[in-house]
Amino acid sequence: MIKAGILGGGQLGRMMLQCAANYPVETFVLESDPNAPAAHLCHRFIQGDINQYEDVYRFGKMVDVLTIEIEHVNLDALEQLEKEGVTIIPRTSTLKTIKNKISQKKFYSENQIPTSPYFITNSRDELSKHLDFLPAVHKTAEGGYDGKGVQSIHTEKDIQLGFDTPSVLEKKVEIDKEIAVLVAIGQQGETAVYSPVEMVFDDDLNLLSHQLCPAQLPEKIFWAVDAIAVNVVKKLNSPGLFAVELFTDNEGNVLVNEIAPRVHNSGHHTIEGHFSSQYDMLWRILLGYPLGNPDMILPSALVNIVGEKTAHGNVCYFGLNDVLGMDNVFVHLYGKKSVKPGRKMGHVTILSAEKQELLHRVRQIKQKLKAGSES
Amino acid sequence: MIKAGILGGGQLGRMMLQCAANYPVETFVLESDPNAPAAHLCHRFIQGDINQYEDVYRFGKMVDVLTIEIEHVNLDALEQLEKEGVTIIPRTSTLKTIKNKISQKKFYSENQIPTSPYFITNSRDELSKHLDFLPAVHKTAEGGYDGKGVQSIHTEKDIQLGFDTPSVLEKKVEIDKEIAVLVAIGQQGETAVYSPVEMVFDDDLNLLSHQLCPAQLPEKIFWAVDAIAVNVVKKLNSPGLFAVELFTDNEGNVLVNEIAPRVHNSGHHTIEGHFSSQYDMLWRILLGYPLGNPDMILPSALVNIVGEKTAHGNVCYFGLNDVLGMDNVFVHLYGKKSVKPGRKMGHVTILSAEKQELLHRVRQIKQKLKAGSES
Repeated sequence: MIKAGILGGGQLGRMMLQCAANYPVETFVLESDPNAPAAHLCHRFIQGDINQYEDVYRFGKMVDVLTIEIEHVNLDALEQLEKEGVTIIPRTSTLKTIKNKISQKKFYSENQIPTSPYFITNSRDELSKHLDFLPAVHKTAEGGYDGKGVQSIHTEKDIQLGFDTPSVLEKKVEIDKEIAVLVAIGQQGETAVYSPVEMVFDDDLNLLSHQLCPAQLPEKIFWAVDAIAVNVVKKLNSPGLFAVELFTDNEGNVLVNEIAPRVHNSGHHTIEGHFSSQYDMLWRILLGYPLGNPDMILPSALVNIVGEKTAHGNVCYFGLNDVLGMDNVFVHLYGKKSVKPGRKMGHVTILSAEKQELLHRVRQIKQKLKAGSES
Repeated sequence: MIKAGILGGGQLGRMMLQCAANYPVETFVLESDPNAPAAHLCHRFIQGDINQYEDVYRFGKMVDVLTIEIEHVNLDALEQLEKEGVTIIPRTSTLKTIKNKISQKKFYSENQIPTSPYFITNSRDELSKHLDFLPAVHKTAEGGYDGKGVQSIHTEKDIQLGFDTPSVLEKKVEIDKEIAVLVAIGQQGETAVYSPVEMVFDDDLNLLSHQLCPAQLPEKIFWAVDAIAVNVVKKLNSPGLFAVELFTDNEGNVLVNEIAPRVHNSGHHTIEGHFSSQYDMLWRILLGYPLGNPDMILPSALVNIVGEKTAHGNVCYFGLNDVLGMDNVFVHLYGKKSVKPGRKMGHVTILSAEKQELLHRVRQIKQKLKAGSES
């Protein structure tokens, strides 16, 4: 039986392991928190730090194939493991390109991938050289995640908010839609592409409201998105499951925003909505099976369950019975005991052939289901 | 978080636990084999014997709610646990009725549930009193499973093959179809019914070939099957997920064959084919949530993967890549390391709106996919 390791034990690992049980594979997880969402679902849980060379190296020596559920892992260890014959998916060189926002941007430029104009800054002071480039977004090269390490710089007075480390200053583009496309590449280079997903934002809160699959796009844009996503992933030159995030604007332009070299929040709906889920697809890649069928079974919407603004401490779900009483929804809670504002606690997928039905359910679920805390 | 225990750690437990990870529940498994299919997917694995009073009692004291994945468990321990406030689903009294074939048959008679005519025999000698009742099937009251404890008695000379323990002698009925219906009953008594499934037999081998959902039945029979299945499960007077196996004959009669008080092989297709799978439904019952939606997403077929006639030792799958390359099939392997003839190693579910497509895939999968052993 093939031994497969996952660096990280969060909800992505959890859903990977729910799916792994369909296949003949012995699963290993490296994670510092023994109560993490994925910790109890593997054959062997190894407590350790995915950012420490020794921990990652020792863990990698236990397995035949190794993947990640988060980019922030020790790449030196992966590089060494790869030299010693462990299969790393995606390849370490690809992870290096993606993990650092400067090298990711350079990769787009070098490969003629459309992306927003940018400058590289090494210190906060350098921002003042680019006043006529504003408004822009400043992003640290390393360590940004879930909104951290990202800062809007509208005018000169925002420069003080910028980062004093190597960063990318990206031109603010007029966005019509934010789109995500999952692309799978097998060990023989074969590809499979999922339908584009549309991120729908709540304009009042400036937060993701829900996702819709397939994205509602003019046909020309739809094909451009598809072609650009496949092209950028092919250029990465590695097997794996990748989530490509793109912007479209009102003039018909498509820009690559960023790539996640792993299963992704924008692909949770594939568990019920598609013949082969993103998790199933990744296992097929890791185990050397043929790629799965990325086709939709039904259109879907996805609502994330995040901690309420006032939530702290032991999580308590409100409205769960209401949502579980709906006919075509699928609830996934991640088994996190404690909640804080904005923490991802779970998601709900809705299936329906009717877009109105999807939107109706989204509205109901967002009204009823809350991740609060015990009072 | 509710603590839920499962007695038994086979493939049914495995699929229960894959699904459990969607809900806030701490999972416990009692099982003698630490390498059993479900062993690594629970929060706490307790090694022990599900037939021993002490093991079951001690295990039950660790949890809030307890269920089974096999009927052959120590019922005295469950009875005591129930007295002490542990929720047992299904109830011990219901398990008692079902576990013993004599009491199961009496239950049908007492409740006017149509079932094949029968006599109770306490010894082999008693069979000779029922010569004019033959051909019949002799079934031991306790301990029969997967074809064991079942013997056809066609004529007087077969009597020597009968059982010398308390048994049921059932009239052999002319069977048109074998049907299974899953029925869910929630803790408040609410019910949900899945579409009937049809077992299709290979007449040459006299073995189950595949299952089809929904069953192809004349409308009148379809409704009779549905009504009888719901009625018999309601009469059992317990929450739980039940599989009712029925026979239909050419004259339009519907007879209850037997009931499994648990998730069942005939319901594996619900994982992908129905909005709420049998596993999801059982968790909703255990955790006190509303029942799920048993409706079909698409019609389905199911092929079991069983050990080849010549297979012994470490399992080796042949044709797996061919099957994984098919667009609308879902492979579930149960993680068993060793194979023997007829052992259930996994299953494949096929989804399609077209019956011809389902049957075509069934034929392909049965030809290509084999669970053999390393040579």
